[in-house]
Amino acid sequence: MKTVSENRCFGGVQGVYSHASDATACDMTFGLFLPEEATEGPVPLLWYLSGLTCTHENAMTKAGAQAWAADHGIAVVFPDTSPRGEGVANDEAYDLGQGAGFYVNATQNPWAPHFRMWDYIAEELPRILSANFPIDEERQSITGHSMGGHGALTLAMRYPGRFRSVSAFAPIAHPTQSDWGRKQFTAYLGADEATWAEHDASLLMVRDGFDGPVLIDQGASDQFFDLLKPEALAHAMAARRQDGQFRMQKGYDHSYYFVSTFMADHIDFHAAALSA
Amino acid sequence: MKTVSENRCFGGVQGVYSHASDATACDMTFGLFLPEEATEGPVPLLWYLSGLTCTHENAMTKAGAQAWAADHGIAVVFPDTSPRGEGVANDEAYDLGQGAGFYVNATQNPWAPHFRMWDYIAEELPRILSANFPIDEERQSITGHSMGGHGALTLAMRYPGRFRSVSAFAPIAHPTQSDWGRKQFTAYLGADEATWAEHDASLLMVRDGFDGPVLIDQGASDQFFDLLKPEALAHAMAARRQDGQFRMQKGYDHSYYFVSTFMADHIDFHAAALSA
Repeated sequence: MKTVSENRCFGGVQGVYSHASDATACDMTFGLFLPEEATEGPVPLLWYLSGLTCTHENAMTKAGAQAWAADHGIAVVFPDTSPRGEGVANDEAYDLGQGAGFYVNATQNPWAPHFRMWDYIAEELPRILSANFPIDEERQSITGHSMGGHGALTLAMRYPGRFRSVSAFAPIAHPTQSDWGRKQFTAYLGADEATWAEHDASLLMVRDGFDGPVLIDQGASDQFFDLLKPEALAHAMAARRQDGQFRMQKGYDHSYYFVSTFMADHIDFHAAALSA
Repeated sequence: MKTVSENRCFGGVQGVYSHASDATACDMTFGLFLPEEATEGPVPLLWYLSGLTCTHENAMTKAGAQAWAADHGIAVVFPDTSPRGEGVANDEAYDLGQGAGFYVNATQNPWAPHFRMWDYIAEELPRILSANFPIDEERQSITGHSMGGHGALTLAMRYPGRFRSVSAFAPIAHPTQSDWGRKQFTAYLGADEATWAEHDASLLMVRDGFDGPVLIDQGASDQFFDLLKPEALAHAMAARRQDGQFRMQKGYDHSYYFVSTFMADHIDFHAAALSA
């Protein structure tokens, strides 16, 4: 693992690190905020998964998480959203290929050799973090924005017991019924839609739910509202009696201005679960 | 109008009053909390509509609203849930007839002569309140529990501009598709289901929405969950991008213990809208 940069930030350290990844067969870069408390012992960890076109850097610089994470003594990891590099397949579209990993393990060519973001986030990066940083593996929560909200919700529901709480900002909520989903699942997973269901937050909410609290914020003026399909997730949460809140935020769009506005609420929400 | 009782309460007055009603053709009784500020001039008004089997008294004594209403200088009115008296039709079931007016104007016999709770709440009682108490008609909001949540939501959506905010505790959310609704609408409104749609919060949310903020709390352990159908309302709110929040409260049932727990949140919510 290589240290790309480390900066003092809200009494802790905002680091950027890179490493060779077995899961994605390329070098991967991630950001990690460690609060001051990490100098004394293991701290809880909040995962922040980013959306389409983002690298590890966008949320790290624009989501405003560090101030609130420092208040609560919580670490935040900002993974990249896909494999990258010259040998890695890509597409001209912004929503397929590099920057658009969709948190799945691709089974179809040309994507299969590198696009294994599910294994990277669920298995490899946790090992790397635990081996190199003072992280308390027993206290983890997860959040994300848009495609990253999709990743956060699907990971949280498919790894029961791992995350104490899950939240999402304007998640891609029902990708099997959206152009943000059908296109990518066809490319990465193939035409057999039975394999897609494991990566649809609304379907997983109907089938499994989440064994902790859920917080969803959705901007009412989100320019991608019709692609996100939040109504499917809201219905599934209510029908399942899922512990949680679905909040429609009047006037907010899909940007980091929306994310940063409600970041304090989300970190307070996770901190309550992580300290319980 | 006759004063039944007046008691000092949180610096204001909790009164109970009765009057002959034109709408329901019988005597009606209501509770009204006036905060201390009402001695100086008109105050905002929050309507609290009660659920099946309740009179004006249940919420007045068990919902815990007066403390928070006093904090914000807001009046709260607690109407009865149906016409009552010896000449008024009734049924042996708890969910039809007296105590179960469902906030509609009955068109079918034997209910039509008295069961006109829609007109009573929407037209007659507002006139009586304005004529007799220092109420600021320009600042009104509405809430309710169960059948009263149904009433609050349907009144709020069908009188745009009248209420600045609407909330509900475990509302009957989709009565046209529930045994809490189909039975009563058949009895009161007749078999033509086209007339029912005007009294279904989920259908009105799809068609009209509400021109202000909405707050819904639903207990996850509500013993009547399947009759309430909150998932239909959650879907409709999200699909419409309705400004508001839908909160699933883990472990709470349908009782006033649930209502009183979240009453402070609801009155804070309405106070923000009423003071804007």
